[in-house]
Amino acid sequence: IKSKLPNIGTTIFTTMSKMASDYQAINLGQGFPDFNADQELLNLVTDAMIAGHNQYPYMSGVAELRHVISEKVDTLYGHKYDRDTEITITSGATEAIMAAVLSTVNSGDEVIVIEPCYDCYVPAIKLAGGKPVFVQMIPPTQHKENFSVDWNQVKDSVNSKTRMLIINSPHNPTGAVFTDQDLDALEAIVSDTNIIVLSDEVYEHIVFDGNKHLSVASRPRLAERSFVISSFGKTTHTTGWKIGYCCAPVVLTTELRKVHQFIVFTVPSPFQHALAAYTKNSQTYLTLPAFYQLKRDRLALALRDTKFIPLNSPGTYFLLADYSNISDLNESEFSIWLAQKHGVVVIPVSAFYANPNDLLANHKLVRFCFAKKESTLDEAIERLKKV
Amino acid sequence: IKSKLPNIGTTIFTTMSKMASDYQAINLGQGFPDFNADQELLNLVTDAMIAGHNQYPYMSGVAELRHVISEKVDTLYGHKYDRDTEITITSGATEAIMAAVLSTVNSGDEVIVIEPCYDCYVPAIKLAGGKPVFVQMIPPTQHKENFSVDWNQVKDSVNSKTRMLIINSPHNPTGAVFTDQDLDALEAIVSDTNIIVLSDEVYEHIVFDGNKHLSVASRPRLAERSFVISSFGKTTHTTGWKIGYCCAPVVLTTELRKVHQFIVFTVPSPFQHALAAYTKNSQTYLTLPAFYQLKRDRLALALRDTKFIPLNSPGTYFLLADYSNISDLNESEFSIWLAQKHGVVVIPVSAFYANPNDLLANHKLVRFCFAKKESTLDEAIERLKKV
Ligand SMILES: CSCCC(=O)C(=O)O
Ligand SMILES: CSCCC(=O)C(=O)O
Repeated sequence: IKSKLPNIGTTIFTTMSKMASDYQAINLGQGFPDFNADQELLNLVTDAMIAGHNQYPYMSGVAELRHVISEKVDTLYGHKYDRDTEITITSGATEAIMAAVLSTVNSGDEVIVIEPCYDCYVPAIKLAGGKPVFVQMIPPTQHKENFSVDWNQVKDSVNSKTRMLIINSPHNPTGAVFTDQDLDALEAIVSDTNIIVLSDEVYEHIVFDGNKHLSVASRPRLAERSFVISSFGKTTHTTGWKIGYCCAPVVLTTELRKVHQFIVFTVPSPFQHALAAYTKNSQTYLTLPAFYQLKRDRLALALRDTKFIPLNSPGTYFLLADYSNISDLNESEFSIWLAQKHGVVVIPVSAFYANPNDLLANHKLVRFCFAKKESTLDEAIERLKKV
Repeated sequence: IKSKLPNIGTTIFTTMSKMASDYQAINLGQGFPDFNADQELLNLVTDAMIAGHNQYPYMSGVAELRHVISEKVDTLYGHKYDRDTEITITSGATEAIMAAVLSTVNSGDEVIVIEPCYDCYVPAIKLAGGKPVFVQMIPPTQHKENFSVDWNQVKDSVNSKTRMLIINSPHNPTGAVFTDQDLDALEAIVSDTNIIVLSDEVYEHIVFDGNKHLSVASRPRLAERSFVISSFGKTTHTTGWKIGYCCAPVVLTTELRKVHQFIVFTVPSPFQHALAAYTKNSQTYLTLPAFYQLKRDRLALALRDTKFIPLNSPGTYFLLADYSNISDLNESEFSIWLAQKHGVVVIPVSAFYANPNDLLANHKLVRFCFAKKESTLDEAIERLKKV
């Protein structure tokens, strides 16, 4: 058969995790913790199963969980989404992104994507028949410690065909976090247009140094046109449960659910009941910044004793590091070499660009995931010191 | 915003389940059991969570589960799928169907769909840009107790644009089960063409009266071109866990995974580990025919004391009944009336046709789900006797 999707390979996360197991390397690639979730949360899943919550839940998700999300978003960002018509539980953020794009992007529509970016945005746009229009972030300079969005270029990319703009803060893979100025610029660009905003906020609770996540939900003129997507995977150390969600005004939620119901129909019931009970009673997400900041600092500090140069990471559980003192290999080649030769798996930043060859900035960066036990980080550091 | 999918509403299963809860009616509509899964299986989920299986499993699914499936399909149908390259665990059969269609049906391709059929086939084809071509089943006659496929008409519908043919046995909603003659006819039609077969076999273990399910996997000339899709939801009484799977030759699996990885990325880890351990040690599916046949007979026999005329149900946990002795309302109106007036929720068979107005046979049929406790069935029967 002739492939319909000849240019789609296996995701970089699968490729690198497979490499980790093939070479018995330490996996600081794919973003998931190597410690277990809270036993209390696991017990709640068991309770839900024994209570018989093992059949199809309602298509948009378990009402109690939608309720908890509605309350939390209101408390944190001051926007009240109606739990019945504006919140949908999805199979991770990935499914929410796919459903949002498939349900609103028409054949020929343009979608602005800011690179580097998570690798599912572009395939979703292409499956919808849309055209991704890329704006590359400005790499760090002597004056700016991290990547930043060039809003002028975003503005210049808008035209009458622009249907959607995809943003992500805290940002994977760079760790960059939007400021008020970023949201001002975004608001100025999309106000008085028909552009839909898709805001991927899965790392909303992992922001460091006393800063706070700024959600597009907090700006009425953005919320009215936005799919705001998040997930419990990063927040409750359960990436393998695949429970995400999307908050969006009724008109957008109505469209999203049309696709959601035929992509997966609904999302596992026991986890939804457990997460509802767990997040109702506890605000563990408040402990995440301190918890992960220790890990970030442990890794960043130790990297200063290696030939890697760590970049600042204001949010997410990822940290970029420059390896130009070590090698001239490109990011993909270097990552493979590092896994094979030194037993540490990372993700090449070029994998977050649709066309790595069109990279404007010739950076030499890899991404480390620091959502790991101290012993894992320490062992990785020992190996990295030898590089 | 202008809707991209103006003709897609909410699925009939959601609509009718909502009606059941609104009118406190007995829900014999949506297909799920009202009894719990095996405690031993639930314990295995708890074990998997405590063992730390709460992070992303491998994209195509947990290896042990793919292994168990490979062995089972080989034992039952005599075809050995490679667990690593030919079996993918999906978010229910629904996601498998969506990924199979999205990854292989191109814009303008025709897909033959046999009606009545499960309601996600046609939206998947439309999202892929394909064109559904409908063949309606032959309704029961005095000589034939159930619906059957008109293979001549299927053959006449094939042309150079035909990319895929979707079949389903045991058949939802009619309960019809393919015979050897059906597979012969299918094989004759697709051999020496490029047509891909999508075979939805989620009720494979629920076949009655001593008959056996005939999988397309059992025919080499069909298996080589088929996506064979099944699910644990119907087999282990866990519809709300959403663990399905797809067996297909490498070329097809490669395409399917390209889409799977961007629709949901992967499927919950604890359930996969538990189902692998559970199905390795026990063959509970062997007990399903007797278990459900008792329920089928209980409902069918009791319906003879009402004005409904039950049809034969050779497989699935559904049973059709004719209500023409009761009412002239169409199937949709009758179902609403039955819920409101008599407190029993069923599914109108017209909901399984993309264009209920084009129904060739003017039948008056509703679908009952008998995957219910005896007490639920008995209470429903009491109510139906009053109709
Ligand atoms: C869905 S696998 C990737 C996990 C993740 O968010 C990342 O590593 O960037
Ligand atoms: C995914 S909800 C529908 C369940 C089912 O298979 C049916 O009722 O036909």
